[in-house]
Amino acid sequence: MTSPLRIGIVGLGRLGQRHAQALAFSTRNCVLTAACSPVETERTYASTELGIQRVYARFEDLLASPDVDAVVLVTPTSLHADQAIAALQAGKHVFVEKPLALNLPDCERVLAEADKHPDLIAMVGFVRRFDPSYRAAQASIAAGEIGRPFIVRSQTCDQNDPDGFFVRFAPTSGGIFMDCSVHDIDLARWMLGRPKALKAYATGTVALHPGLSEFGDVDNGLAIVDFEGGAKAVFYASRTMAHGHETSTEVIGTAGKLLVGEHAARDRVVTSDAHGVRHAVLKDFYERFEAAFAAEMGEFVAACRGERQLTLTLSDAMEATRIGLAITRSLHSGMPEAV
Amino acid sequence: MTSPLRIGIVGLGRLGQRHAQALAFSTRNCVLTAACSPVETERTYASTELGIQRVYARFEDLLASPDVDAVVLVTPTSLHADQAIAALQAGKHVFVEKPLALNLPDCERVLAEADKHPDLIAMVGFVRRFDPSYRAAQASIAAGEIGRPFIVRSQTCDQNDPDGFFVRFAPTSGGIFMDCSVHDIDLARWMLGRPKALKAYATGTVALHPGLSEFGDVDNGLAIVDFEGGAKAVFYASRTMAHGHETSTEVIGTAGKLLVGEHAARDRVVTSDAHGVRHAVLKDFYERFEAAFAAEMGEFVAACRGERQLTLTLSDAMEATRIGLAITRSLHSGMPEAV
Amino acid sequence: MTSPLRIGIVGLGRLGQRHAQALAFSTRNCVLTAACSPVETERTYASTELGIQRVYARFEDLLASPDVDAVVLVTPTSLHADQAIAALQAGKHVFVEKPLALNLPDCERVLAEADKHPDLIAMVGFVRRFDPSYRAAQASIAAGEIGRPFIVRSQTCDQNDPDGFFVRFAPTSGGIFMDCSVHDIDLARWMLGRPKALKAYATGTVALHPGLSEFGDVDNGLAIVDFEGGAKAVFYASRTMAHGHETSTEVIGTAGKLLVGEHAARDRVVTSDAHGVRHAVLKDFYERFEAAFAAEMGEFVAACRGERQLTLTLSDAMEATRIGLAITRSLHSGMPEAV
Amino acid sequence: MTSPLRIGIVGLGRLGQRHAQALAFSTRNCVLTAACSPVETERTYASTELGIQRVYARFEDLLASPDVDAVVLVTPTSLHADQAIAALQAGKHVFVEKPLALNLPDCERVLAEADKHPDLIAMVGFVRRFDPSYRAAQASIAAGEIGRPFIVRSQTCDQNDPDGFFVRFAPTSGGIFMDCSVHDIDLARWMLGRPKALKAYATGTVALHPGLSEFGDVDNGLAIVDFEGGAKAVFYASRTMAHGHETSTEVIGTAGKLLVGEHAARDRVVTSDAHGVRHAVLKDFYERFEAAFAAEMGEFVAACRGERQLTLTLSDAMEATRIGLAITRSLHSGMPEAV
Repeated sequence: MTSPLRIGIVGLGRLGQRHAQALAFSTRNCVLTAACSPVETERTYASTELGIQRVYARFEDLLASPDVDAVVLVTPTSLHADQAIAALQAGKHVFVEKPLALNLPDCERVLAEADKHPDLIAMVGFVRRFDPSYRAAQASIAAGEIGRPFIVRSQTCDQNDPDGFFVRFAPTSGGIFMDCSVHDIDLARWMLGRPKALKAYATGTVALHPGLSEFGDVDNGLAIVDFEGGAKAVFYASRTMAHGHETSTEVIGTAGKLLVGEHAARDRVVTSDAHGVRHAVLKDFYERFEAAFAAEMGEFVAACRGERQLTLTLSDAMEATRIGLAITRSLHSGMPEAV
Repeated sequence: MTSPLRIGIVGLGRLGQRHAQALAFSTRNCVLTAACSPVETERTYASTELGIQRVYARFEDLLASPDVDAVVLVTPTSLHADQAIAALQAGKHVFVEKPLALNLPDCERVLAEADKHPDLIAMVGFVRRFDPSYRAAQASIAAGEIGRPFIVRSQTCDQNDPDGFFVRFAPTSGGIFMDCSVHDIDLARWMLGRPKALKAYATGTVALHPGLSEFGDVDNGLAIVDFEGGAKAVFYASRTMAHGHETSTEVIGTAGKLLVGEHAARDRVVTSDAHGVRHAVLKDFYERFEAAFAAEMGEFVAACRGERQLTLTLSDAMEATRIGLAITRSLHSGMPEAV
Repeated sequence: MTSPLRIGIVGLGRLGQRHAQALAFSTRNCVLTAACSPVETERTYASTELGIQRVYARFEDLLASPDVDAVVLVTPTSLHADQAIAALQAGKHVFVEKPLALNLPDCERVLAEADKHPDLIAMVGFVRRFDPSYRAAQASIAAGEIGRPFIVRSQTCDQNDPDGFFVRFAPTSGGIFMDCSVHDIDLARWMLGRPKALKAYATGTVALHPGLSEFGDVDNGLAIVDFEGGAKAVFYASRTMAHGHETSTEVIGTAGKLLVGEHAARDRVVTSDAHGVRHAVLKDFYERFEAAFAAEMGEFVAACRGERQLTLTLSDAMEATRIGLAITRSLHSGMPEAV
Repeated sequence: MTSPLRIGIVGLGRLGQRHAQALAFSTRNCVLTAACSPVETERTYASTELGIQRVYARFEDLLASPDVDAVVLVTPTSLHADQAIAALQAGKHVFVEKPLALNLPDCERVLAEADKHPDLIAMVGFVRRFDPSYRAAQASIAAGEIGRPFIVRSQTCDQNDPDGFFVRFAPTSGGIFMDCSVHDIDLARWMLGRPKALKAYATGTVALHPGLSEFGDVDNGLAIVDFEGGAKAVFYASRTMAHGHETSTEVIGTAGKLLVGEHAARDRVVTSDAHGVRHAVLKDFYERFEAAFAAEMGEFVAACRGERQLTLTLSDAMEATRIGLAITRSLHSGMPEAV
């Protein structure tokens, strides 16, 4: 397969634009031929800024477009399953932003459809798997450098947004664990070698955003998951960090430990002044994972072109949803929940 | 009060010797006049190395000694309560190593006796409260510098001892949480302003020392505690670190966070060579808290001499035991336990 | 100007290939239309890997190519001046790898020619100016955040190559200061606000590569430069680092200091194991400045298209050469040399 | 020798009080029996705070005191040589604060006198040699862990004192290199294995304290020293740091490098807040070397009691003065100076 992969992007919100730019300007072997959004300004963006010729308001029209080999879905989570299934049925490779779905039946439907199309790539956007640091850490673990890994501590902590934008998003986000920790859950499984999760316990608190309470959500959550074979994971998710965005993951093994991302330095500058010795901090996950978003698209294209085998499967995405749901149930029940 | 405080030390094991050396050679305004140990080599050590004149095999004899104003108990935990009570009844100030006791009735008996002697100092050795870094952190929080603190993450992680000495100690240690995490529990309460603990959940695993299983103990434990008002604490205790001893504590507030002790650098040397850029790590808690042990003795002496008010109370010690017991119950039941 | 800039690359050695890949795959608004190399394997690379249609063995042929708006010169330093002049005379924008030239008359000839073509961009590849961390540092200084900057300490330290490839390169490199420190010299001028250099002193040693001695070169060099107004710079260049490539720069001001690049962490992973707490180190300047090389090409294209004003001038490049030459004279004379 | 060493301290200014407290309260096997100061408040301090019985206004009286085995001189540098000689002639061990003297003849007189008293200890206070981190670094080098060391970069940088106290001290300090860098010079020789210094070059600037100019002194100085065998040292001394006191030393060898003291963290606390991720910085050299000052006194006492062999000799102190003088001459001449 030597001609470039022709891609249609669906959804051009903030993250959608990031993916689109990566595809348009810095991913090899692909062309961004089509875009779809119900929002007019987003369609204008696609034409003007990205120079895309075929721009649609409706997903069906993009699917019917003659020159689309693959679709990239950056749409609301509630649409993921149906859109992914439709794309597969239309014979397209499909990339879905995380999480795959907020319930297991939806995940199962997607997996069942994908099983019918072994020739098509279906991938979920767990972007951290494409970050150079997480990759180095996982490779080190796989090479046995920290012995047998048995504890993961992982966090997704966003800088506080005083406007609390995410509060309005709370009714549909699935809660803090489904929205933020699902990445950490996927990482924990990846780093630990995909053990089966048995049991989850969670607790949380509202530190700064009381508006979350009516949706049963919190702005700071803690969870522990027990895996078969004795491994454990602790997750921390926060929407209220004062200093910036800090995504970090520690994997503890019998011969050493690895820590990825601590302190979230924005760059290689250290300042020494009246405030002490300090460095600036990343503002958000876009800034943290900019290179990983580009690498992720590169991997998707390479997989569609048959040049690369993906290790991240739909089944991984379903397991992350399964564990996230058990954690969320525990947050509400106050009791450990079976996964 | 101007004459030096006369101190008798009880127990001259490894930690007892540390305390004794601090009292003998680098604590102001005190004299180490007496020592007591059932072990002959320890008594010899007291005479020869420390130059103590009055050395006893029996605790009662030390209490009866004419020139002892205060006793420092570095004895097995099971003896703490009775010895502390006897010391108070004999009119002595008393310092007890942590934990105060492994059950609440013993704690209550000591508190009741101490109440009868308002003129005597009774102090429990939560040494981290005397470490300069923990002190700076707590002062910063008390000054409001991180806003309202609401989450504490704290760990006590020992370097793995391949001989597993602590396995033999397992039957009497009270388990990993009572032995190690009791410090973290005390710190969490101190940093958070002493909120009432409501609920505890724990889990654990045996990574390297299967001998612990028969005592219901683990070599790696994780716990979450919910406090009244919404604050949370997560504790991690490990006996199996490959790199060294790492005691660290993070306090997260609404306006910032503080992290004490990460990476446990042994000193100020950074080496760049074929292994990367690296620093050596502390070997054990003696090395980490050497200065704090000395400061702790200094505070005890100052308090006995009426020069300083202690903020660390017997009631703090009892609460730490109470929380540690609830965590330990949860480890065994697999369910959250009321504190 | 809306059509993409058409670029011809000259020289496809290791660094040339880097530039070519950046231009071919991740620079906006340009097309790599032509390539030139006297080496057949490099020409094959251009056709096969980069898909370039017009591939030449001779520079003149590339210049005569109909669809080249700009040339990128990644050729031996001795060719820079003549090729840059020829490109300008042919009406092409020109990018020259650093250093501009190893003598001042050559620099002056290029500047004189460029003066005749005010509509053409002529840029020298001081890549560090396009690194995000150096940019943040310079912006911070320009905003007055460290007060008045008055001392720069800057180093370029390569990992030791046991094969000593650079020894064979010694006769034509201009010596360690012209080859490595010229970047640091440019940075120092940039950070200090382009003061006039007055005096230079240098010393050096051969630590591991005695073969350098016959060329009057060293594998570790130290230099101090005095600037008008009292500012100073200290440079360190090394070919013999054991741990990796470490490019770092410190700028000291009256109200604070900035340090860029210390310890050269390869990524965001910290490992704690029997070797201590450590991180991996960058292997070479390609790895360190990968993103900066891409940004540099982006800036060149944007400048050629009239979208951006370059702050880096040919005059800056000539001053860097002038200071580098004075330092090199001092290395040989053992005495301070006027710049 | 089993009775405690009886010490008389001479000079009770700020540093003198530090030494006196270390001797009085935390040094084993010694008693501070006498003190001497021409300043009445200092003598009162000695009696009241330190409980010293024999307090003298005149040095001769202290020397004549019956119960003094050793004297600790913390007096103005101009008095060091004569007082040290007098002490030796009186049969006392002697500790002299650094530098030994500001000229070589004075150094030579002390060495000559010391040679006549092989049974007496004479030691100069290069306190950094007793700091745990510097000791670990030197031990690592001596064990060959970084191969052959060949470059030292060392700095003594004080936090700016807006009042410029040290300006008044300028006429007698010997200049910034004799006052501050003499420590770095001694460290460089120690780390490099005491090579013979050949040549020194220095430059400096007045960044904030113009009052220094009339004494030919600067508030920021840079120097390079060439040693026999090819090793080099670069020194930086500053009185104008904005962030605090930062004493650091890097030793570069053929198989690795060591860096002691970078960033000068005050303690183990890291704060993450609106100012970034940061740590507090040491205020001054007292705070940095508090433990080292105590260890230094311990070593002096142990040496006087014949329990320890000193590796730091009077000859080391004379060499440090010799190199410091050459650097200072170069600062004034603008030319390299023979050492």
